[in-house]
Amino acid sequence: MTLPARVVVVGTGLIGTSIGLALTGAGVEVLLDDTRPARLRLAADLGAGRPAGAESADHAVLAVPPGQVAPVLLAAQRRGLATTYSDVASVKAAPLAAATALGCELSSYVGAHPMAGRERAGPGAARGDLFAGRPWVICPHRGSSPAAVVAASAVAAACGATPVRLPAAEHDAVVAVVSHTPQVTASLLAGLLLDAPAVASELAGTGWRDMTRIAASDPDLWADIAAGNAEPLAGVLARLGAELADVAAALRGGPDRPRLAAVFRRGNAGAARLPGKHGGNAPPVTVVPVVVADRPGELARLLADAAEVNVEDLRVEHSPGAPVGLVELAVRPEAADRLAALLRACGWSVHRATPAG
Amino acid sequence: MTLPARVVVVGTGLIGTSIGLALTGAGVEVLLDDTRPARLRLAADLGAGRPAGAESADHAVLAVPPGQVAPVLLAAQRRGLATTYSDVASVKAAPLAAATALGCELSSYVGAHPMAGRERAGPGAARGDLFAGRPWVICPHRGSSPAAVVAASAVAAACGATPVRLPAAEHDAVVAVVSHTPQVTASLLAGLLLDAPAVASELAGTGWRDMTRIAASDPDLWADIAAGNAEPLAGVLARLGAELADVAAALRGGPDRPRLAAVFRRGNAGAARLPGKHGGNAPPVTVVPVVVADRPGELARLLADAAEVNVEDLRVEHSPGAPVGLVELAVRPEAADRLAALLRACGWSVHRATPAG
Repeated sequence: MTLPARVVVVGTGLIGTSIGLALTGAGVEVLLDDTRPARLRLAADLGAGRPAGAESADHAVLAVPPGQVAPVLLAAQRRGLATTYSDVASVKAAPLAAATALGCELSSYVGAHPMAGRERAGPGAARGDLFAGRPWVICPHRGSSPAAVVAASAVAAACGATPVRLPAAEHDAVVAVVSHTPQVTASLLAGLLLDAPAVASELAGTGWRDMTRIAASDPDLWADIAAGNAEPLAGVLARLGAELADVAAALRGGPDRPRLAAVFRRGNAGAARLPGKHGGNAPPVTVVPVVVADRPGELARLLADAAEVNVEDLRVEHSPGAPVGLVELAVRPEAADRLAALLRACGWSVHRATPAG
Repeated sequence: MTLPARVVVVGTGLIGTSIGLALTGAGVEVLLDDTRPARLRLAADLGAGRPAGAESADHAVLAVPPGQVAPVLLAAQRRGLATTYSDVASVKAAPLAAATALGCELSSYVGAHPMAGRERAGPGAARGDLFAGRPWVICPHRGSSPAAVVAASAVAAACGATPVRLPAAEHDAVVAVVSHTPQVTASLLAGLLLDAPAVASELAGTGWRDMTRIAASDPDLWADIAAGNAEPLAGVLARLGAELADVAAALRGGPDRPRLAAVFRRGNAGAARLPGKHGGNAPPVTVVPVVVADRPGELARLLADAAEVNVEDLRVEHSPGAPVGLVELAVRPEAADRLAALLRACGWSVHRATPAG
């Protein structure tokens, strides 16, 4: 795939700025465009590219909310901004329909959706590695030119992502399940806390935190995304709502224990469908837990003692005020025994290693 | 609070074994009892205590599923197992009602619930620090003796937890929201993947993973917990189900963008209710992101260069195959500039520090 030499990114939020950082890192000349000058300056200062002048580009990435893709595409085409165009919107059928209705030139456009994000928004949260190893869906429509598809795919690959081709309708059905329904559910769950006794926020544990983390996301952006995927999303939400009502009925009528167990067992099966932590290609890891004192230099000493082994991941579990924390070192399974022996020989309190998903 | 000198833990699953480990670490003599000999042996081998003989204890912790608390309490009292009793069940009204119905001696018993857990079950997943910094709810009933309440609270404190007194009904209402509803929702969400196109599991990102992680939990235990908190849980599930149906209606009838934005904004407000990552007493931290090469010894070198600063937490973001990963060092806000300067002086690629919740 030929990488476009000059790419203009329209919209310097989290996604646009992250694309600018990634493409700049890949040696592409990146121009930045945004109606909000402060965001544009910050994105440029962060190294995501330089503010666009009058020059045109080989490819334009429209990193704007779903509802703005069509008008921004039309305006860009009218001023000859680029040869080909793609977007990053989390819904794909609605922007295409809107672009068609507005009379955009469609052959130079292909819909795209990098499947990455953060609960923090804006250029300040951008990361050049945001897309590394993530899927980047490309949804060619009937009239998309091969040049547009090739350019969008090359941009995805240059950002470290894996281009995945899908029809727009299938994309929208899938993201309704794996992305939009979790967002709505997290927001509704978090909202329950507002009507619960005050002690509830004190008793909320890691399960609650994990399930409501994305409730901190941008409300207006999400209203736009949800509205843009209205039918598929409404279908999944209605189903999930009915399933919750079913469980409520199973609880009230008895309760029906086998029916309840079946719900949780089905959840087990769904959880097992997921590939490993970092995606399908991730090798399995074994977690070696080590108790570490909470003072400067202890982590350094631990990692120095472990330096012969490649640590794939590391997590610190540490309670406030506790004199020790638990450091979980994730290594390839075949390296776990060696790591444990190394650390024990250095006097560390190594706990039992366990395989991790 | 006087710590009981000898505690017997009945049930050596995740919670019972973790309590055994914590109490043993606090200098308490711990006896272990379980109807399943293999679990009992493993818990004892892990250092959680020694298998109980004929001797009686000062206090018994009944670490059995909610539905077994009452019969196990009755049997224990009949053989004079301990002077006072508490349990660890995630529901509190139902076990007390069952114990009353069975004719247990009630003054020596107080309900309790350590608010900690893992999605892994069994003694092998136990940790002595599982309860550190977590709330441990104590629910005295009208007839609970002060001795039982004091003993249960002392056990909680010895495990590093914070005893929190709550009436059983309030406890059950709160855990229906912050613990049981998230579990049911995670299980139902994960189950959606079974009917989605195969590509869905490929496109599922961190939001999906966070929201379905606990779907891997033990189905029979959760059927028991849900059944034991049937009315409060059914109420919350029915409400959440109705709210999901409302959002579906807002999507279908228009879509109604202000109504959608209000849902997400309410989610923001709920998310903001939570205290900091490690609980209400946690000091704020600032995250300093550093790009680190994926090879043995790099983390050690980084931490050695950072050793003058107390690193509160550390997270590694690393995509498979990528030559670099991003290490996020969390430090007290006032230490962030010094850490960044230290690391930059050593040649590290330090990114912009951001405050973290």
